[in-house]
Amino acid sequence: MSLTSKPEETPERLAFYAKIDKQAFTPLWAVMSDIITPEPKSGCRAHLWKFDAARAHLMEAGGLITAKEAERRVLILENPGLRGLSKITTSLYAGLQLVMPGEVAPAHRHSQSALRFVLDGSGAHTAVNGERTMMKYGDFVITPPTAWHDHGNQTEAPMIWLDGLDIPIVSHFDASFAEGYGDDEQPVSRETGDSLARYGANMLPVDYKQEKLASPIFNYPYARSREALERMKAQDEWDPCHGLKMRYVNPVDGGHAMPTIAAFLQLLPKGFKSAAYRSTDATIYVCVEGGGRTTIGGEKFEWGPKDIFVAPSWAWVTHEAEGESVLFSYSDRVAQEKLGLFRQDRGNH
Amino acid sequence: MSLTSKPEETPERLAFYAKIDKQAFTPLWAVMSDIITPEPKSGCRAHLWKFDAARAHLMEAGGLITAKEAERRVLILENPGLRGLSKITTSLYAGLQLVMPGEVAPAHRHSQSALRFVLDGSGAHTAVNGERTMMKYGDFVITPPTAWHDHGNQTEAPMIWLDGLDIPIVSHFDASFAEGYGDDEQPVSRETGDSLARYGANMLPVDYKQEKLASPIFNYPYARSREALERMKAQDEWDPCHGLKMRYVNPVDGGHAMPTIAAFLQLLPKGFKSAAYRSTDATIYVCVEGGGRTTIGGEKFEWGPKDIFVAPSWAWVTHEAEGESVLFSYSDRVAQEKLGLFRQDRGNH
Amino acid sequence: MSLTSKPEETPERLAFYAKIDKQAFTPLWAVMSDIITPEPKSGCRAHLWKFDAARAHLMEAGGLITAKEAERRVLILENPGLRGLSKITTSLYAGLQLVMPGEVAPAHRHSQSALRFVLDGSGAHTAVNGERTMMKYGDFVITPPTAWHDHGNQTEAPMIWLDGLDIPIVSHFDASFAEGYGDDEQPVSRETGDSLARYGANMLPVDYKQEKLASPIFNYPYARSREALERMKAQDEWDPCHGLKMRYVNPVDGGHAMPTIAAFLQLLPKGFKSAAYRSTDATIYVCVEGGGRTTIGGEKFEWGPKDIFVAPSWAWVTHEAEGESVLFSYSDRVAQEKLGLFRQDRGNH
Amino acid sequence: MSLTSKPEETPERLAFYAKIDKQAFTPLWAVMSDIITPEPKSGCRAHLWKFDAARAHLMEAGGLITAKEAERRVLILENPGLRGLSKITTSLYAGLQLVMPGEVAPAHRHSQSALRFVLDGSGAHTAVNGERTMMKYGDFVITPPTAWHDHGNQTEAPMIWLDGLDIPIVSHFDASFAEGYGDDEQPVSRETGDSLARYGANMLPVDYKQEKLASPIFNYPYARSREALERMKAQDEWDPCHGLKMRYVNPVDGGHAMPTIAAFLQLLPKGFKSAAYRSTDATIYVCVEGGGRTTIGGEKFEWGPKDIFVAPSWAWVTHEAEGESVLFSYSDRVAQEKLGLFRQDRGNH
Repeated sequence: MSLTSKPEETPERLAFYAKIDKQAFTPLWAVMSDIITPEPKSGCRAHLWKFDAARAHLMEAGGLITAKEAERRVLILENPGLRGLSKITTSLYAGLQLVMPGEVAPAHRHSQSALRFVLDGSGAHTAVNGERTMMKYGDFVITPPTAWHDHGNQTEAPMIWLDGLDIPIVSHFDASFAEGYGDDEQPVSRETGDSLARYGANMLPVDYKQEKLASPIFNYPYARSREALERMKAQDEWDPCHGLKMRYVNPVDGGHAMPTIAAFLQLLPKGFKSAAYRSTDATIYVCVEGGGRTTIGGEKFEWGPKDIFVAPSWAWVTHEAEGESVLFSYSDRVAQEKLGLFRQDRGNH
Repeated sequence: MSLTSKPEETPERLAFYAKIDKQAFTPLWAVMSDIITPEPKSGCRAHLWKFDAARAHLMEAGGLITAKEAERRVLILENPGLRGLSKITTSLYAGLQLVMPGEVAPAHRHSQSALRFVLDGSGAHTAVNGERTMMKYGDFVITPPTAWHDHGNQTEAPMIWLDGLDIPIVSHFDASFAEGYGDDEQPVSRETGDSLARYGANMLPVDYKQEKLASPIFNYPYARSREALERMKAQDEWDPCHGLKMRYVNPVDGGHAMPTIAAFLQLLPKGFKSAAYRSTDATIYVCVEGGGRTTIGGEKFEWGPKDIFVAPSWAWVTHEAEGESVLFSYSDRVAQEKLGLFRQDRGNH
Repeated sequence: MSLTSKPEETPERLAFYAKIDKQAFTPLWAVMSDIITPEPKSGCRAHLWKFDAARAHLMEAGGLITAKEAERRVLILENPGLRGLSKITTSLYAGLQLVMPGEVAPAHRHSQSALRFVLDGSGAHTAVNGERTMMKYGDFVITPPTAWHDHGNQTEAPMIWLDGLDIPIVSHFDASFAEGYGDDEQPVSRETGDSLARYGANMLPVDYKQEKLASPIFNYPYARSREALERMKAQDEWDPCHGLKMRYVNPVDGGHAMPTIAAFLQLLPKGFKSAAYRSTDATIYVCVEGGGRTTIGGEKFEWGPKDIFVAPSWAWVTHEAEGESVLFSYSDRVAQEKLGLFRQDRGNH
Repeated sequence: MSLTSKPEETPERLAFYAKIDKQAFTPLWAVMSDIITPEPKSGCRAHLWKFDAARAHLMEAGGLITAKEAERRVLILENPGLRGLSKITTSLYAGLQLVMPGEVAPAHRHSQSALRFVLDGSGAHTAVNGERTMMKYGDFVITPPTAWHDHGNQTEAPMIWLDGLDIPIVSHFDASFAEGYGDDEQPVSRETGDSLARYGANMLPVDYKQEKLASPIFNYPYARSREALERMKAQDEWDPCHGLKMRYVNPVDGGHAMPTIAAFLQLLPKGFKSAAYRSTDATIYVCVEGGGRTTIGGEKFEWGPKDIFVAPSWAWVTHEAEGESVLFSYSDRVAQEKLGLFRQDRGNH
């Protein structure tokens, strides 16, 4: 049965395959078990990148190319099982971006959704739709699809953040559009903090119409998100698989902040050892506070602040926190839910 | 044509009407112009209640009945055009509630949605689903349908708030359920601030399922709402009809905080004179800051802090603010939108 | 406790009530148990109207007033517990309309949603948005809010149908708009059957945008609905409370055909005796085929073809079918579901 | 600027790239213009497969392997620009399946959504969830994700249909699950026609809950779909780009019949020449009736009944119909709309 094995390749069959190949036909039964698999089975592998090593490379890159020449001075975190594909999972991209003091990453826009999670430095800005936000450690910043955006660093220190994009998804659907703005920076037309004030206080302008699928909030400050976890901690309702895990929300519809990428922040108490969990959304994790280890498909990864690691689809994941720890993570869960593909397994929990 | 006038009442017709009346029939044409009107035409009238007078009455009531005996010590603001019906508009109820120091308004629950808008005193509490919130001036507090709730005042001063309920809507649909808890107060099982932290920071618990139509946030603090308006003020985008007007939002779906009652907070700059506006949602207004006057269907009402006034459906409304002013308001707009009935007219704006 | 009883009316209290009454205040505690009731408790009563008697009255009305003078020649079925209010339940209206051969019920439009369920005669037409549909026994026809509509009878026989409208809902929200077209009939611009073909075959025009909440299908032919029940019958999955009960659907969103009125068709097999059921949506039933009896709140009603009866909110309802029977029914369930008010009780089933 | 070009590859840079490569890093700027493109730019190419040639190959395959050994005896239509990837577009799969008289394609289930569009023979069956449907020319049949399904041919003639699946989408998200049923055929528990009767007549069971994203109807008969187009034809509202184009609908929510694949049927009148149109959803077309030609990105393809052709994302498409023609088509438009990626360009129309 070709659902799990391949039929025999007789000479007659091989001759037939060769003949029809010229007319752009190919037999399903020869590939069926590769493309409709009993369980998720991509090449995506678990991996961890130490931040210190990454930072050293970035600083070296800082001497080799300017942000402007590079358009974005980013080192892609390429999944060891998917080399050459500019991906960290089958559907998502991750990179570490460096903006040096005085530099600008020029204004452009594209169909791809992007998130920024700030790891080093404080006070560089991202501008979206005429408003600048100042970025601090742990801030979750989004630049929505087709929105003009640029970054600048007017501080004295280098600034590094994690970029998470849906580049592979947009490529998969063959729906990429991109253009440069023509200038390094877009004009500023709104005060800093305007969008958070306008859309982030559990109120909305009375006649607000949703026109885009992404959140109108573009900076979810870490101080605020962390405070939410801190307050919840008092209630002592720890999920055995997740500790306290929250997702970033689009206030306009209660959905995820972006149409293709789901993002999360979770608190693990000191000494917490999670129950095993697996899901179809391969997930990229960043340690924001604390330290510990995560076992992914039997392989153990030690992490401390700013380290980044990835868990493939359907691999069993278990976290252990040494001290109280905070993990940021993102995945394609929102896309999978919309498409009816998301599945999770909490073991017995 | 009986859409706008009534057919003649001939003796034959009247005899026929009398005959069929016994069998529970009645001719449509004799009433059609009363029940399918060219424009909204209820008895609801514009009216203003001065807070000082109301407060004096409430304090007198405080000597006549306890909160416990009354279940809720509330004076209903009854629309002068709808006397005897316990309504402020055709579909909504408003009352002013007093809780004296040391008193408790006992725990109960009902199908009706309720909002509380704090006007006098500071620090009494409302408990919902095991959590207490401390109420301050301008806080917008909801007690959702079928949620156990009780109020208590452990401060030294009387506490007064506006109650807004959908009692007439629930009666209209004949769907009222209510029961007492059996005790004065429900047990406290969550820390104060838990629900706001959990649901109010533009994040949601990762596996949160919406089971009720009301917001899981039950106190929208004034400080936070007012700050949103203050930040937006800088952008100088004043709507000609509304100034800066925001609606309170359910973070789970981006809809209104309650399934039947919409609530709003709006800022009018000093000297602002709004363009005329009318809509089918008769609206109850409370002055939170400042002072001014509102013209409703040609009639002028002067208001200062804590005064309450009502504008009927489809009456033209114009506001004038003397100093910078803040108005809280509520209406049945959310219900009308869901039922396809809401209509508004911005004149030429 | 005034949730279930009223506090004593002392002379001091009564004097106070009288004093504040002049300023449009009234004490909640004196009315609370009337307006927030432990269970639904309106005046709405169970009742049955025999079609034969109704038809005789209608024919007499046919001699007393023309359809044109009456605008609509309709006898309202007024609930015996709600006399003078032009209602069959607290929220809905029912009437029987007669159009004589050669007559026209002139074109008009209004905010109110209307359904027509054909009971006598065959082939008169309803026109909606430029399309005429020919009405046959059992057809479920809607005239959506704000759509121009007119009726005409070019057959040789009188035509009678049941009208179901949400007049009380629109009045309750004070949102009625109505106007005459100016001519007896609107011009015909689409072929008969166009909307059913376009929207009824489980396909939709590729770029169709939903602009109204009502279904774009305006005649759900009985032949088609009855066939669905007949095919389902073979599966033998009878709901103990409902037999086989289907709701009419808006193909654009899967919701109900109208924004405020839910409509149903149900098949009861020969000899079926339903389990007791109650719900908050008071319901109007019409017998389309067969005969039997329904017990409502302990009171028994015998029905045959075309008879109409009403069950109040939260009354226990049990049906018994003598022969295989079909019941059409409508209620405000869709409105109650949107507003979070709907509740049902299936006993132990 | 690396959005449209690549920075110079200096020796220093190349050395750096090589060094970081070992640690699973790669420079974004070296690949950016390949992965974030100004416009869709995959390898997907326009192509046409003549049915006669395909049928001959299939019949030959019929002698080389049984349906049972093959699990499914299908020839994949592999896009000439994406050879080796088992795809007809970047995100979708197409194949032609042959079931010989007396054969069975054994019962299995998988995460992938599948459509069947019948091209040759009449009367073979597909079974889904215990119900068999008999398949005729032009019928649009779906086998929803995770639903057990099998096919059998109890007629005297070979049966051929087009299979459309989302295999590449499920692989992309690494979310494939599949399993065999263990028997050739699942037991039949429902009468043929039950699901269409139950869900296809613009009615739904009163308490129906949506649990899956796919339509509960699994055969949309051609006779019915064709009749819809025929009736609409009378209205003479031809879209300049599409003629009369309808999408297959899930009656439960008005969305597409499947969560990842959109399907369409369109009528082109005799002599119709469409205006140029392009969109981001690469589309697979099948001629059901008539004949004509389609120009895709400047390349012309002649088609007659049963021929299959594909248009890539963002290529300009123009159709010319010689006689009145019907085209069936499918694409990933529903997925792109949910993910915010869909874009179309109607030229000046």
